[in-house]
Amino acid sequence: MADTFEPQEIADRVLELAEQKKYNDIKRMLSEFNPVDLAEIMNVIDEDRLAIIYRLLPKELAADVFVEMDTDRQELLLSKFSDKEIKEVVGGLFVDDTVDIIEEMPAAIVKRILRQADKETREAINSILSYPEDSAGSIMTTEYVSLKEDVSVKDAFEKIRRTGVDKETIYTCYVTDTTRKLVGIVSAKTLLLSSPDDKISDIMETNVISVDTHTDKEYAAREIQRYGFLSIPVVDKENRLVGIITVDDAMDVLRDENSEDFSKMSAVTPSDKPYLKTSVFKIFLNRLPWLLLLMVSATFTSLIISRYENVLTGISITLFACIPMLMDTGGNAGSQSSVTIIRSIALGETVPKDIGKVLWKELRISFMLGAVMSVVCFGKLMLIDRLYNPMDALTALTVSLALFITIIIAKVIGCTLPLLAKAVKLDPAVMASPFITTIVDALSLIIYANIALAILN
Amino acid sequence: MADTFEPQEIADRVLELAEQKKYNDIKRMLSEFNPVDLAEIMNVIDEDRLAIIYRLLPKELAADVFVEMDTDRQELLLSKFSDKEIKEVVGGLFVDDTVDIIEEMPAAIVKRILRQADKETREAINSILSYPEDSAGSIMTTEYVSLKEDVSVKDAFEKIRRTGVDKETIYTCYVTDTTRKLVGIVSAKTLLLSSPDDKISDIMETNVISVDTHTDKEYAAREIQRYGFLSIPVVDKENRLVGIITVDDAMDVLRDENSEDFSKMSAVTPSDKPYLKTSVFKIFLNRLPWLLLLMVSATFTSLIISRYENVLTGISITLFACIPMLMDTGGNAGSQSSVTIIRSIALGETVPKDIGKVLWKELRISFMLGAVMSVVCFGKLMLIDRLYNPMDALTALTVSLALFITIIIAKVIGCTLPLLAKAVKLDPAVMASPFITTIVDALSLIIYANIALAILN
Repeated sequence: MADTFEPQEIADRVLELAEQKKYNDIKRMLSEFNPVDLAEIMNVIDEDRLAIIYRLLPKELAADVFVEMDTDRQELLLSKFSDKEIKEVVGGLFVDDTVDIIEEMPAAIVKRILRQADKETREAINSILSYPEDSAGSIMTTEYVSLKEDVSVKDAFEKIRRTGVDKETIYTCYVTDTTRKLVGIVSAKTLLLSSPDDKISDIMETNVISVDTHTDKEYAAREIQRYGFLSIPVVDKENRLVGIITVDDAMDVLRDENSEDFSKMSAVTPSDKPYLKTSVFKIFLNRLPWLLLLMVSATFTSLIISRYENVLTGISITLFACIPMLMDTGGNAGSQSSVTIIRSIALGETVPKDIGKVLWKELRISFMLGAVMSVVCFGKLMLIDRLYNPMDALTALTVSLALFITIIIAKVIGCTLPLLAKAVKLDPAVMASPFITTIVDALSLIIYANIALAILN
Repeated sequence: MADTFEPQEIADRVLELAEQKKYNDIKRMLSEFNPVDLAEIMNVIDEDRLAIIYRLLPKELAADVFVEMDTDRQELLLSKFSDKEIKEVVGGLFVDDTVDIIEEMPAAIVKRILRQADKETREAINSILSYPEDSAGSIMTTEYVSLKEDVSVKDAFEKIRRTGVDKETIYTCYVTDTTRKLVGIVSAKTLLLSSPDDKISDIMETNVISVDTHTDKEYAAREIQRYGFLSIPVVDKENRLVGIITVDDAMDVLRDENSEDFSKMSAVTPSDKPYLKTSVFKIFLNRLPWLLLLMVSATFTSLIISRYENVLTGISITLFACIPMLMDTGGNAGSQSSVTIIRSIALGETVPKDIGKVLWKELRISFMLGAVMSVVCFGKLMLIDRLYNPMDALTALTVSLALFITIIIAKVIGCTLPLLAKAVKLDPAVMASPFITTIVDALSLIIYANIALAILN
């Protein structure tokens, strides 16, 4: 089904039925879909009809659909909802999702949401909102199943049956002592495969891996991935359990972090909306400062060219024609290394103290690459380029030698800068191709000119 | 704990204890760790001692540790294992993990593994191996809980208790009819919250989202993410259930796909091993062909420069000094668009038929960017660059105008190529910065020279 799922087509059919007031047909049609797909349909429904159609959704799905909708759609609905409707939706949401929504809404709506939430939920919302942005605490939920050590499996099941419907997951239960300290975990699988009289303390896993409320959320998400968990507990400084992060949220965190890295690596300020839904002006603003910065820093390269212009053209006009090839290859060689290292840092595989290992590795690789590339370059110059440019062996040698050194320098800079950035807590992703290219451009030109002076003068 | 987890330190302590033959201390020490962490310890243990230490692992964890270890370590152990040990490990693995291992092992070891697997497992292995690489079928597992429609919740729990220990997940159960066709799903949560006498057919969800065995595995993984599933069913052409993919495997697929995209976008052949564990020669081979290809294609740029060299230098030497700035800005502008679109395609947000929308968007953005950039460039040339280069308003106008057009062309090419690649089933990620830069370089030079001729001649 998903292959051919076209939200716009379904939205059109829904609106058509709405024109004819065939509301029961709409209800029947919508009941066929998963909440995620329903949210996509709601996202493209005509704004004037949105509230009417939304109210036709099956009651038990309404909140699940709401949480998946675009922010502007949520805002539109909330502004039209009665207090009772707000209470229903908020009551059907998990706390972490409510927090996500609150963070995007204007103050007036936030106030209404908080007024409609019960006391416990309001406290949970405020506690999650109090954690720093991008921390594990800021994305956790407080709706987990907690068990005491001394209860039996039978009692545990009873508690799950009684409270489980409101929990974000019941598949990993968290065992806490009387001071709310996390002492173990037990999976629903273990519970099911144990005998009803077993004590939780006898069947629980005590080597619990947890994260701190202030841990970076990306780190928490990677821990879930690394261990193949369905959820990870979040504890405070005293190891008291305060929440959990579930695997679906971890996947979203990782997707967003990856998208941010892709943006930064191509010199764009990350956007939290899909490309087609971001406004032209917003994209313009996300791109402009980087292009400006890089253009201004290229002034440096122009300066170098001007400085060596007479030198180079004085020797051979051919040297000039090779500048773009030299600069591009340097940029490419540098970005090969920088992107590899940036990714490796993001995955937690490489840390700043590996810098020695990384440098030694890149040095060997760049010698091999430099050697092959410069030999090929020499051959290319003598066989192909000579067809349209005056070329002699010494000129070809100059270009090849400059290429060799450029590749080595590009790779050394490319692997070093991201690690240095990480060491001083900057984002390594910013040290990708564009910046490296600018630096390598300038350096390669200086080297080129000096080699030319040494060999050809 | 995970923050300070240092596999090498623990491995050293283990080896120290092994020297002193304190095997019980080692056992106690190792029992504190999660299988994933144990695998990392095994990965750095001295090769000669690996088999001895591995055999000290708690029996119930041995297979879980094995599956997480590096391939070369697995091969080493398998080559030292007795048939009985192989049987034990394979018996403790899920089928999809066994297939992953088999795909990496030499024929002799594969033969031994298959001989030690029971008939059912062997058949499952062969069926998974028969699906195309990168298909959903190739990464699924056949160990799921299937239920019949007419059984009661009580009977379902009995079946789960009886067979659940060997299933990759028991949290989503799959309901099939007598012809093995998938007719519904029921979560363990629903089962737990239902009464024991309820019939499965009354509580199951019938709008099942599934993927086909031949669906791309990345698509299957993104569906799991999109819907927040713990697993997704894989069906054959007749909608018969043949396997499932679990969320942990989906996360790994997405991580690897992201890493591949990062590699391709920086002109590197993707590697399936972490950077620090890949050999220098292998990295060299992954990088060389792309650098060579890009260097050779830069010949084209040299050709253009040679063609216009006399024209440009004849007019003003300053024009030459601005070439790198022009080329770099064009490259950056192009890669901003291409990387944004490539990512958007990877996330399934943009498809080739959106090309009209994308082009219109990029055109507006590039006009805005081009306008601001060329004004700033003009100012920079007249205020800063004139300090070291002869500069007049007409020259500055030439450069700024060329910059304006270059940015527009770069963005149009940058957004078009990835979509075209996708349309003809090529990998959009290859259409990233390096290739775009090469094309934009050449075009921007031609434009530059012609504008110069028109304005300054």
